[in-house]
Amino acid sequence: MSALYSRMTVLGCGLIGSSLLRAARRADLATELVAYDLSPSVRTRVSELNLVNRVEATLEAAVAGADLVIIATPPAAIGVTAEAIAPNLAPGATLTDVGSAKQAVLEAFSAAVPVSVFAIPGHPIAGTEQSGPDAGFADLFVGRWAILCPLDRPDAAYGEATERLAEFWRRLGSQVETMDARHHDLVLAVTSHLPHLIAYNIVGTAADLEEVTESEVMKFSAGGFRDFTRIAASDPIMWRDVFLLNKDAVLEILARFTEDLQALSRAIRWGEGDKLEALFTRTRALRKGIVEAGQESAEPNFGRNRQP
Amino acid sequence: MSALYSRMTVLGCGLIGSSLLRAARRADLATELVAYDLSPSVRTRVSELNLVNRVEATLEAAVAGADLVIIATPPAAIGVTAEAIAPNLAPGATLTDVGSAKQAVLEAFSAAVPVSVFAIPGHPIAGTEQSGPDAGFADLFVGRWAILCPLDRPDAAYGEATERLAEFWRRLGSQVETMDARHHDLVLAVTSHLPHLIAYNIVGTAADLEEVTESEVMKFSAGGFRDFTRIAASDPIMWRDVFLLNKDAVLEILARFTEDLQALSRAIRWGEGDKLEALFTRTRALRKGIVEAGQESAEPNFGRNRQP
Repeated sequence: MSALYSRMTVLGCGLIGSSLLRAARRADLATELVAYDLSPSVRTRVSELNLVNRVEATLEAAVAGADLVIIATPPAAIGVTAEAIAPNLAPGATLTDVGSAKQAVLEAFSAAVPVSVFAIPGHPIAGTEQSGPDAGFADLFVGRWAILCPLDRPDAAYGEATERLAEFWRRLGSQVETMDARHHDLVLAVTSHLPHLIAYNIVGTAADLEEVTESEVMKFSAGGFRDFTRIAASDPIMWRDVFLLNKDAVLEILARFTEDLQALSRAIRWGEGDKLEALFTRTRALRKGIVEAGQESAEPNFGRNRQP
Repeated sequence: MSALYSRMTVLGCGLIGSSLLRAARRADLATELVAYDLSPSVRTRVSELNLVNRVEATLEAAVAGADLVIIATPPAAIGVTAEAIAPNLAPGATLTDVGSAKQAVLEAFSAAVPVSVFAIPGHPIAGTEQSGPDAGFADLFVGRWAILCPLDRPDAAYGEATERLAEFWRRLGSQVETMDARHHDLVLAVTSHLPHLIAYNIVGTAADLEEVTESEVMKFSAGGFRDFTRIAASDPIMWRDVFLLNKDAVLEILARFTEDLQALSRAIRWGEGDKLEALFTRTRALRKGIVEAGQESAEPNFGRNRQP
């Protein structure tokens, strides 16, 4: 298959950005790969790792002549980056991003980017708890979902650019779904943002206990806690940005979660075993749905089995 | 190595009980293996699986002449089972259990079991989200912790029985730690019970949303939610019992968790990014401690990677 783009530029070379470069090269999706990162040491590392044809030290030089520009910075920097590069983007270029909050990006793209550029907010649901250019790998997007949240633009050229970008993700091994940005933010608040918030919170609560030492928590973490520590090891800057950018949806879902948790707490206090059992039976059924939908193996996970 | 016990009886043949039988046979820890389960169909299945020398249909017949009796029933049944078998236990026999709440078991054992029997509450921190005799496997306890919470008995024979039981767990591949029952319950409330409660709760909250379909939740669960669904698929009866039996510790830890969560919620509402970042940086360091302590690999988990 021929390359989809002639020059692909990635701005921000952390876990996701560097994985994109590795995956695009392997799948031969762009004739030329260009990288930029704000950090000189990351730029040096990207050169050493030989991920691209050119590493540029300025945004202007990095995006010049690119027909695909992907912003892979921390989420809070996406809007300002778009604004900064807008005058230098080539007409007909596609601009996208990989952030986890999409309404804010959609608004920033709409405000800053000229209509001669096809600005398409995007979000691959893939990652690990690692960060930085060394953490990336070409397989990161294989078997994952990539969500695109296109602007409300009726022109056919925009539709074609969106289809080309979808094909880009498919060639990286992802399934692609198109979604309204606000709806994306609500869905992700449930499936990703709240889980991370909860994980961060429980690990913090555990660390603050006086009666239980940190070494005990670590030693006996196989009982369930360890899964939370992995999630709570995710990039602090990225997550700070996600919660602030998707504030409304996160607070709404968090309020429902807290309400439900109070009801559970009350059921425990009053010994209402039937209520507990009813909930636990329902949640087990939902897991079955995930396994049957092929989202995960039904096999027990021997590597990290756990129990009460 | 010679067998540690001449007749080992397991009462309750679910995931843990059937794993114990498989593991004990493989390690040749008892000359004779006997099983009992309240459910006729489970008894039939244990016979079919050929896990034991004898399956008995009454508690009395099952424990007669056994020098090791392990109660592996749902937690709420441990106390009544101990009471029921107490008259039939052989003098010099060791009685233990595998439940996740230990103070309640310690009290039940102290009240019901004669001093001629060595009653030693126990808890292997191992398991999967599967249940039933078919879910068990001999490797379940390898590399896991087993906690013993001995009674306050000064006699040397009790100490020897405890040491023999510890050796039993070591030969199954576990590391053994001795702990005060109340402290065990607090430690496990943090490392296991609260994580399960939170997981059950978040899965319930997600299932109740009107704006987001269950199929969307499942589809995009790789963002963190999926780890929670695995935990929330654990046995409903067992977990109902654990929360009711370890009520005080669970409510205490839950109250702290909720307090911390309110503070986080407030920080998000008021845009206090520095507070979020400070917590997220702390929790990441704790994860490093777990990885460095060898409790888990530092490698990213490619099988179930996830991202915002």
